[in-house]
Amino acid sequence: MPRTETAILRIHCPDQRGIVARVTDFIHQNHGNVVALDQYTNREEGRFFMRVEWELEGFLLDRNDIGTVFGPLLGKPLDMYWDLKFSYKIPRMGIFVSKSSHCLYDLLARYEAGELKVEIPVIISNHKEMERVAKQFDIPFYHIPVNKGNKKEQEEKELEILKNHRVDFVVLARYMQILSSEFVANFPNSVINIHHSFLPAFAGAKPYHAAHSRGVKIIGATSHYVTSDLDAGPIIDQDVIRISHHDSVESLVQKGKDIEKIVLSRAVKAHLDRKTLVYNNKTVVFA
Amino acid sequence: MPRTETAILRIHCPDQRGIVARVTDFIHQNHGNVVALDQYTNREEGRFFMRVEWELEGFLLDRNDIGTVFGPLLGKPLDMYWDLKFSYKIPRMGIFVSKSSHCLYDLLARYEAGELKVEIPVIISNHKEMERVAKQFDIPFYHIPVNKGNKKEQEEKELEILKNHRVDFVVLARYMQILSSEFVANFPNSVINIHHSFLPAFAGAKPYHAAHSRGVKIIGATSHYVTSDLDAGPIIDQDVIRISHHDSVESLVQKGKDIEKIVLSRAVKAHLDRKTLVYNNKTVVFA
Amino acid sequence: MPRTETAILRIHCPDQRGIVARVTDFIHQNHGNVVALDQYTNREEGRFFMRVEWELEGFLLDRNDIGTVFGPLLGKPLDMYWDLKFSYKIPRMGIFVSKSSHCLYDLLARYEAGELKVEIPVIISNHKEMERVAKQFDIPFYHIPVNKGNKKEQEEKELEILKNHRVDFVVLARYMQILSSEFVANFPNSVINIHHSFLPAFAGAKPYHAAHSRGVKIIGATSHYVTSDLDAGPIIDQDVIRISHHDSVESLVQKGKDIEKIVLSRAVKAHLDRKTLVYNNKTVVFA
Amino acid sequence: MPRTETAILRIHCPDQRGIVARVTDFIHQNHGNVVALDQYTNREEGRFFMRVEWELEGFLLDRNDIGTVFGPLLGKPLDMYWDLKFSYKIPRMGIFVSKSSHCLYDLLARYEAGELKVEIPVIISNHKEMERVAKQFDIPFYHIPVNKGNKKEQEEKELEILKNHRVDFVVLARYMQILSSEFVANFPNSVINIHHSFLPAFAGAKPYHAAHSRGVKIIGATSHYVTSDLDAGPIIDQDVIRISHHDSVESLVQKGKDIEKIVLSRAVKAHLDRKTLVYNNKTVVFA
Repeated sequence: MPRTETAILRIHCPDQRGIVARVTDFIHQNHGNVVALDQYTNREEGRFFMRVEWELEGFLLDRNDIGTVFGPLLGKPLDMYWDLKFSYKIPRMGIFVSKSSHCLYDLLARYEAGELKVEIPVIISNHKEMERVAKQFDIPFYHIPVNKGNKKEQEEKELEILKNHRVDFVVLARYMQILSSEFVANFPNSVINIHHSFLPAFAGAKPYHAAHSRGVKIIGATSHYVTSDLDAGPIIDQDVIRISHHDSVESLVQKGKDIEKIVLSRAVKAHLDRKTLVYNNKTVVFA
Repeated sequence: MPRTETAILRIHCPDQRGIVARVTDFIHQNHGNVVALDQYTNREEGRFFMRVEWELEGFLLDRNDIGTVFGPLLGKPLDMYWDLKFSYKIPRMGIFVSKSSHCLYDLLARYEAGELKVEIPVIISNHKEMERVAKQFDIPFYHIPVNKGNKKEQEEKELEILKNHRVDFVVLARYMQILSSEFVANFPNSVINIHHSFLPAFAGAKPYHAAHSRGVKIIGATSHYVTSDLDAGPIIDQDVIRISHHDSVESLVQKGKDIEKIVLSRAVKAHLDRKTLVYNNKTVVFA
Repeated sequence: MPRTETAILRIHCPDQRGIVARVTDFIHQNHGNVVALDQYTNREEGRFFMRVEWELEGFLLDRNDIGTVFGPLLGKPLDMYWDLKFSYKIPRMGIFVSKSSHCLYDLLARYEAGELKVEIPVIISNHKEMERVAKQFDIPFYHIPVNKGNKKEQEEKELEILKNHRVDFVVLARYMQILSSEFVANFPNSVINIHHSFLPAFAGAKPYHAAHSRGVKIIGATSHYVTSDLDAGPIIDQDVIRISHHDSVESLVQKGKDIEKIVLSRAVKAHLDRKTLVYNNKTVVFA
Repeated sequence: MPRTETAILRIHCPDQRGIVARVTDFIHQNHGNVVALDQYTNREEGRFFMRVEWELEGFLLDRNDIGTVFGPLLGKPLDMYWDLKFSYKIPRMGIFVSKSSHCLYDLLARYEAGELKVEIPVIISNHKEMERVAKQFDIPFYHIPVNKGNKKEQEEKELEILKNHRVDFVVLARYMQILSSEFVANFPNSVINIHHSFLPAFAGAKPYHAAHSRGVKIIGATSHYVTSDLDAGPIIDQDVIRISHHDSVESLVQKGKDIEKIVLSRAVKAHLDRKTLVYNNKTVVFA
């Protein structure tokens, strides 16, 4: 689908009459050609959400002026949270991983194939095992072991590395350490985790053991933005797979990997396409 | 969700800049409060699709004048197909059925529970078996047997009955007769069928036998608008269920019933909510 | 599939070498024709599970003697829990319901259509609303209102009614009262509930509100045998449906009904086919 | 799950009384400890299918004698097709691929992680693009371009390469050439293909274009053993994903990749675990 570069505007604000009309009119008056628009009103909370994407070619406002004009004209008067991005700006993603390779390989294979519009400048791990995978894809790898005593200083090292590599957001591709609130505060709604259960069921450690013990007939995986509250951040995507009494913990782990990697990659793609919008600890994922 | 009555406008037209802005501005200028809006552009075909629903309370135009104003103002200039409905107008649904009760019961149980905003004034069958179900729900039942020789005259009877009961649309709840093109022409995009396969696989008769013979690992059901081309009309919804080599044709028939009735009822609901829009033999199903 | 009546034997016991050989040899020596056999070993727990079904026609042992012979010959020596049923014995199912009709209608429609090999002699409710549905299907209906003060005596009434109608097992088709441990003790592994969430997520009251509040992307339903531990009994079946931010609590309730009724009916069918076997608070569901 | 090496016996034969008893008795008499047993009778065709796996440690027969004894004792008298494998014999898999990397990466990532008990001695392609992926994983890569004129001789080259690398079975990981019947005859039930549609819907070329054109609401992928009849071989596994009118052909291709790779890898795993058994162009996949 060859197209010109686009502007992507995401907003949420108190609901009132005429928001769509006013936002689309702003684009229309400036000769913008809308290529995607999705909006939704949460009527219980009286909150309006919208994502609109339009072609920059032929748009009357210079891209550097769009926000400057939009803010006072609509953002402020309608009490909006708003965020403006441009499709030509490729986000830089840092990957954290521990010892399991399935999510890492899935992300790197998509990266290599050009499926994801992203740069991957760095992989960080608390173990050495994944260094060989990083080498296969020629991506700088940092081994930062973490234990109870050194967590604070190691996180500072990690932040330094992410800063040096100008990382925009972080993906925890089965990283088995809990990040501190201080760390997470550096990347608001920009750390994506994959949890190997159908949250909120089986939060915390060893979810497949817990699922097996409970005798569930379906297992799942959940990708979410990381907040300071463990496994309780806004959910981006989930998926499930049917199991049976035949499955041991080992086979649950094995089957679970297939949904973990797919769900994580779908969440990363939604984030990259700027289709997510967090409000009130929930994630709107636009069409 | 207590709300006032609403107007529902569905349009499709050649794509061009500013359609959303112009349509929402029309509503906004007349003090309409949009409660739902979904739009989408088929870029390959250069076609724009939109559904917008707004509250009638406080709207400046009288409901009888909305179309009269909208047509010349936007419909004509933008070369639109458009359709305007009001939520207080409850559609009248005629049901055709043969001998299987599962889809019929599912529809009637939802009707009785108030799940479907619909009137069901009449049930027609080419067999007598379902008369007892019709009686359970106090709905007039007509037995119109069909064979090769009498099809034309029997369809005329059926059309007469539907007319007398002021039926707006027809649901084939496992009706095992093929309706003639002449019959269907009376209800354009208003006859909903459930086919017991994942179309286009296994179109025609005995799809479960064919599925069993082919050794598929998943079976499905498809609801679609009926056209003169058998099992080839625009698809509204589909769903599937996993099977295995353990399943005989009988167990496929049994498992299939569960998806048939759910898929048909979902399609009927989408139709009742005026969320479907047919173009080029495909169905847009709005959010 | 026309076939003669069958015997169904379900066993579990400590695993050891040769159990399948010895059990199938017992059937073979008595000229039994096996029509279904499924077995599985839980290797972590060292426990063996098996279900075997064979034709009674031509079997050398009289049906009344099968257990008498099998017990001392294999049951006792192998330290088995074993259970023998005959296909000609149709189980009698009591239904408990509150105000929602969807699960009730689904069960009754299948009953009427002959999908379930069951008798339904009685429907009990703590409300009056479902009496009209019971009447549609000509099934005796008892209105037994329950409040904090009268629960014990009302449960005694219910047990009396179930006894009078010779009920073998009970299905809670969205019955919104918690049964006492004393009540449940009368029907071990014979009270089937449908919980409107993907357990163990959202156990307890108002699961759709909780799901909406948490922002999950998939909702589910769970059928399980009732134990004295609320929503924690052995799971028979589960299923899920994808939702989105568009869904309000009301639409979750609506979409949830479709999976609740299907999951409950599948669990009832598994129970009727004597395909379930409970051990250690988990349910083996044989193929 | 630490266990000793096992023997895996797969059989199918005309159904008759006592087959399970006789086969399990054979194992039991020789002190074999059964770790998995699954059997099923196709009653329409009167055919019996069974897979049984037992520990070799402590088995009274030498592994080289098992077949020699089993054949005359049970295989011949019961008119069986039977196949005996040992878990310590790791199969050697050749991969054919064209230009798409998603299935190739998925297989190689699992191989590298030890998920698949397999050797991958060789990758063959009609294009050069995947050579870099082969290099990442240090696997010999052969570029064998195919056109209308050279197909026969190129297939001979391929067979020579497969023979030199002692390949047991072949996986077509999105290989966009049709193999000749002569080639396939060298690997009966041992060439696994992934077709990017829910077969039998959209067999042949460009299934995503066809799915888009038909307006289906769900797309799928199918893995099957290759026979001389294009896209009509025995199905091993299938899966599907829900789509909508929003999806262009490009996004179908993209979403389809996720199910293609998972379905292919599941099929390869079933084959490696010796859980598949082909009869009458259908695949029994044991539990």
